[in-house]
Amino acid sequence: MRIALDAMGTDNRPLSDIAGGVLAANEFGDTIVLVGDKRMIEAELKNHAVETSNVEILHAPDDIAMDEKPTDVLKLGASSSIHVALEAVKNGDVDAFVTMGNTGAVHALATLKTLRRIPGVKRPVLSALFAINDHRMIFLDVGANTDVKAEWVPQFAMMGSIYAERVMRCAKPRIALLSNGAEEIKGNLLIREAAQLLRHSKMNFVGNVEPVELMTSVADVIVMDGFVGNIVLKMFEATTHYVATLLRQEFRNDAFSMLGGALARPAFNRIRRRVDTSQIGGAPLLGVNGVVIIGHGGNSAIGIKNAIQQARSAVRENVISAIRSGIAQELT
Amino acid sequence: MRIALDAMGTDNRPLSDIAGGVLAANEFGDTIVLVGDKRMIEAELKNHAVETSNVEILHAPDDIAMDEKPTDVLKLGASSSIHVALEAVKNGDVDAFVTMGNTGAVHALATLKTLRRIPGVKRPVLSALFAINDHRMIFLDVGANTDVKAEWVPQFAMMGSIYAERVMRCAKPRIALLSNGAEEIKGNLLIREAAQLLRHSKMNFVGNVEPVELMTSVADVIVMDGFVGNIVLKMFEATTHYVATLLRQEFRNDAFSMLGGALARPAFNRIRRRVDTSQIGGAPLLGVNGVVIIGHGGNSAIGIKNAIQQARSAVRENVISAIRSGIAQELT
Repeated sequence: MRIALDAMGTDNRPLSDIAGGVLAANEFGDTIVLVGDKRMIEAELKNHAVETSNVEILHAPDDIAMDEKPTDVLKLGASSSIHVALEAVKNGDVDAFVTMGNTGAVHALATLKTLRRIPGVKRPVLSALFAINDHRMIFLDVGANTDVKAEWVPQFAMMGSIYAERVMRCAKPRIALLSNGAEEIKGNLLIREAAQLLRHSKMNFVGNVEPVELMTSVADVIVMDGFVGNIVLKMFEATTHYVATLLRQEFRNDAFSMLGGALARPAFNRIRRRVDTSQIGGAPLLGVNGVVIIGHGGNSAIGIKNAIQQARSAVRENVISAIRSGIAQELT
Repeated sequence: MRIALDAMGTDNRPLSDIAGGVLAANEFGDTIVLVGDKRMIEAELKNHAVETSNVEILHAPDDIAMDEKPTDVLKLGASSSIHVALEAVKNGDVDAFVTMGNTGAVHALATLKTLRRIPGVKRPVLSALFAINDHRMIFLDVGANTDVKAEWVPQFAMMGSIYAERVMRCAKPRIALLSNGAEEIKGNLLIREAAQLLRHSKMNFVGNVEPVELMTSVADVIVMDGFVGNIVLKMFEATTHYVATLLRQEFRNDAFSMLGGALARPAFNRIRRRVDTSQIGGAPLLGVNGVVIIGHGGNSAIGIKNAIQQARSAVRENVISAIRSGIAQELT
């Protein structure tokens, strides 16, 4: 298998990206195609012990900044690492693309310029994997579509469900809608209409869930609109950081607390890992003609390796053709 | 001043409600009018040392369950504690109403049956007060309107701003919209349209904020639609509870952690208080003809006393007539 990895994705590009790619190349034995400036990648690879036959370089002279707007990205030439890598997926040179780069840019370039939508897909959707007490969920949409129509939602649910089943190895994924209350009368217009559609579908829809249920294991595929999904993820991150700040402040307050904090350092480290979603590495952009996994720019080499692992499973488990069949069935 | 307090609001009605009312009556010297079943209230009052001249009872034989739907509430008779109390505000028998009861019921009965909207108000709005590191913010809407029109948003901002200035004593409240990114191009359709309206108004609009900025002090009045606002509050609560669970689990993991946790117990208690929004007591329903403060059903007596304190400030600072003038100016 050949996986393209954006060498220019993370906040400290290309260091973490290449380190993650090397980890994956050595561990999985697949070919990792590092996409970015050839000379920069070659220079950085010298710092790593790597099975060179497992690593290739695909030259792309430009990269896309994290704050570049999707609309501007579309006007750029085709020489950015994201564009070059997506073309490679499209042409079959590689089996999948993994990036920690600008999500909006990947979404725009994949959907409008390179891979394009799977026929019948109304809107591609960005997902995020979320782990609570070892229970993994896929959230979608988390940012591709800020104004979602109810009729798109069953497709989001179906694509998320296929991913959960094949890649996350969840036997019969339970689909839920995120709402402001579990009762049917709760929700905004979108949620009430989407719930109707899901209830009347053959999908395994278990109803609406509230935020508190995201911290349990009552559902596996959580569907929401991209605006809400993005805010929910950011709210989780902001709240855990805030609590961490409070802990640091209060544990510095007096000698007993300081001693307590020092003794409990391993406990704190375990907690940090348990709320750190970057361990998961990334999540798929679903609905385009190819496997694309997008992760956070702050990811470590381990996170990137995990994202590559997901791409491998998605390719091996034929996620794209499963989605194609799902959509085709829906259309008949 | 005379403040009506719903004796049947909290989850352990009437105990916490009456305890909170008694605290307020003794501390503030105002008359607290307990609204609920007369005999039940009289029986419970015997357990308290209270300056009886400061406490009155307004009989209301029925109460509204927490899970009663707003639509059903409207069909009920006028004998529930919420309905009776709102009528008392309307008739001028009391100056304000404080309740820890069913928010949807209060909203429906106040807006459609009793107090009704201030002339010119497009939609009344539910708020929540949020405190981060002693910085207080007012969030609105947090649940009254799940499908918000952009043209309502400037009024939400104006009403929140008046409350922040007069009751929260914030000198020149900074208004922000909650969005999925600070940039103008971010947001859903509602947020982009609402931002336009606010930018072209005379209000002190400081732009869009992301969830991470809710944990800072960059703005005072945070406007969002009621669906998102409700989920944001619940996400904060769910996340802090989740982290608390992790802390308990990990601190039980080994002897060092257990000892550390025991030493740091006061630090944990301080943190619990700092993330516990119930200390604030409640927040106003804005846009109706009267002061109405609604709090969480899990509130303690202290929280209820604090909610009553807010009602007192709102009455003393003429919040309702300030909103009336604000709306009137807007209409000219």
